[in-house]
Amino acid sequence: MAMTRSLAQGPAALARPSARAGAGPPFSFAAGAGPLPRAVLRKLRADLACHRGTGGSLLDLPFTSLAFREEMERAEDNLRELLSIPPGYDVLFVHGGATAQFAAVPMNLIGRSGQADYLCAGYWSAKAAAQASRFGQIRRIPGARGPGALRIPPPGEWAVDPLAAYCHIVSNETADGVQHQAVPETGAVPLVADMSSEFLTGPIEVARYGLIYASAQKNLGIAGLAVVIVRHALCSTALPGTPAVLDYRALAEQGSLLNTPPTFAISVARRVTDWIREQGGLAAMRNATLRKSSRIYAMLDSTGFYRPTAAREERSRINLCFSLLSPELEESFLREADRQGLRDLKGHPACGGIRVSLYIGMPEAGAITLAEFMREFERRFG
Amino acid sequence: MAMTRSLAQGPAALARPSARAGAGPPFSFAAGAGPLPRAVLRKLRADLACHRGTGGSLLDLPFTSLAFREEMERAEDNLRELLSIPPGYDVLFVHGGATAQFAAVPMNLIGRSGQADYLCAGYWSAKAAAQASRFGQIRRIPGARGPGALRIPPPGEWAVDPLAAYCHIVSNETADGVQHQAVPETGAVPLVADMSSEFLTGPIEVARYGLIYASAQKNLGIAGLAVVIVRHALCSTALPGTPAVLDYRALAEQGSLLNTPPTFAISVARRVTDWIREQGGLAAMRNATLRKSSRIYAMLDSTGFYRPTAAREERSRINLCFSLLSPELEESFLREADRQGLRDLKGHPACGGIRVSLYIGMPEAGAITLAEFMREFERRFG
Repeated sequence: MAMTRSLAQGPAALARPSARAGAGPPFSFAAGAGPLPRAVLRKLRADLACHRGTGGSLLDLPFTSLAFREEMERAEDNLRELLSIPPGYDVLFVHGGATAQFAAVPMNLIGRSGQADYLCAGYWSAKAAAQASRFGQIRRIPGARGPGALRIPPPGEWAVDPLAAYCHIVSNETADGVQHQAVPETGAVPLVADMSSEFLTGPIEVARYGLIYASAQKNLGIAGLAVVIVRHALCSTALPGTPAVLDYRALAEQGSLLNTPPTFAISVARRVTDWIREQGGLAAMRNATLRKSSRIYAMLDSTGFYRPTAAREERSRINLCFSLLSPELEESFLREADRQGLRDLKGHPACGGIRVSLYIGMPEAGAITLAEFMREFERRFG
Repeated sequence: MAMTRSLAQGPAALARPSARAGAGPPFSFAAGAGPLPRAVLRKLRADLACHRGTGGSLLDLPFTSLAFREEMERAEDNLRELLSIPPGYDVLFVHGGATAQFAAVPMNLIGRSGQADYLCAGYWSAKAAAQASRFGQIRRIPGARGPGALRIPPPGEWAVDPLAAYCHIVSNETADGVQHQAVPETGAVPLVADMSSEFLTGPIEVARYGLIYASAQKNLGIAGLAVVIVRHALCSTALPGTPAVLDYRALAEQGSLLNTPPTFAISVARRVTDWIREQGGLAAMRNATLRKSSRIYAMLDSTGFYRPTAAREERSRINLCFSLLSPELEESFLREADRQGLRDLKGHPACGGIRVSLYIGMPEAGAITLAEFMREFERRFG
């Protein structure tokens, strides 16, 4: 790697920005938007100029056009194939991100008993529980949560309430860097998972869930779209004050075309899922995710200089969080990294520290380059 | 125009598709998504490859990045300047289209009195009233509406209920092709307008409205984004079951960054509003809209072959609807037009006939080419 060599030349070279294109920096490790695979970006640029040789653009395709219908059907077919979605599940393309679903899930599902269980293992599951409490009685597991108490409750330490309309988890806590290592057992109570940051980073056994939702901007394209995969039988009557755009049954009946959908974001999702298939599907995504995250964790574990935040047994493979000895050192780390084109590494404001997000669009070269930078940074400041 | 000449050569030439780029066909007259100005499309292609020389793409900008904040601030500044928005109004960028606002408006505003007035002059205002009725007592004006009864109630024939929390209109009925020619007088009752299809086609006196909303895909860019311009004092406490993403006060407090916003759609909106300013602002948009629509209406009024749907005094300048003698003739019209690259002219399913949508991204050459096609079509089939 050219970068390794320049790092070996010492501090002066460290500050020199890289101007290389292709597999080199800049890399964005942001949690809020994953980088699009560069091959997808190239396809999108071509389709912006002239989609399918029609002279029209992919950006302003009418949602009623045959061309857009094909985009959406292909996106759905790709998801069904990649995730081996069993029969009896609807795949909905909806406006907005996971935060809209924090309300939509209880509005659509809580009616059966008026209560639900929420596993609260981090920032986002707490946010989901807070919105859900506007619509019914929410039991938070664990009951108390504070600094240092953050963890995923082990299977033996909790049981789902059989009266719960559903049990909700956030499968990977984007802000805190902890990830469920196994699917919780909830018996007859439907399991609902916000999978935004984990979605498409590996295979999922969809049949174990009543509902899975994910915002698109991490692993499925760009912001403004969420995907909901829901067992059809669960979509019964929504609460009376449910906006039409959040009503799963209405959305399913209209094939997600209840109003103009976020057409371009859906077309991006189609190209991302095309790309995943070309790469070898979700097994290939899982392997790449393991390789990239292992590279960073190996670096973190080889030294006391970097301090991983999460307990080893619940570490996230997608959002890797750690701190340094002092806030000043963290500032230096972020500044030096940014100069090298290693961007957006600042931790979530609620958690602090450093966060490395490794969504599927992050090439392995990004993780390798970052690990090398970390080694060199430690050599200089450790 | 090259097209005029080929039309003059008769039916054989009519069927020949045009392969020219630039100012010629294809033109999309779709109501569901307006064409992006071609200059904006060129800018977007460049920014997709390398945004501001950073090597990053405009598509996957993190919403927390300085670069995205600048996009959003510029989009808001442009709107404030173009529309001369008075102090005391919030400009919100929200997920989803106008259909989400059909719920958000009553959820945020109806609490004061529990009732609202809805002027129902067409398909979309009826849809808005239907959703609003989930949240309070809705009075529809006129009370009865059926085929043939469609029209905008003249000022003398109705009065707003002083107890109404607000009075709602759809300023231009996209499906029916009728448009309010003046702002209704509602006294102390705040006027709320869905302006989706009319937005940015000419100046608006914002101070006369309590709230204006518009989906972006007609005149402000691409689907997945709506803009809400709302008098700050109106954003008080939303109904208890309001999802966070639809809560105006929460959105205003967070500067529309309550969750990841539809970043790319906002960046598109910024470029569309940049372009409007370059063209001379909203006065220029109004003049272009008048020129384009006059061209088509002059053609419609010069003959009995085409039958305009709306009464002359309430005709829309943006969505121009008409019928032909028979459904078969309309099918021929649509087929021949499509062959000439004049696309998406089919009327709304609820209304039938032909609909010509002239959003701001439609070049004047589009209206001129269509008028010429219509003249030639009449010559052959009239």
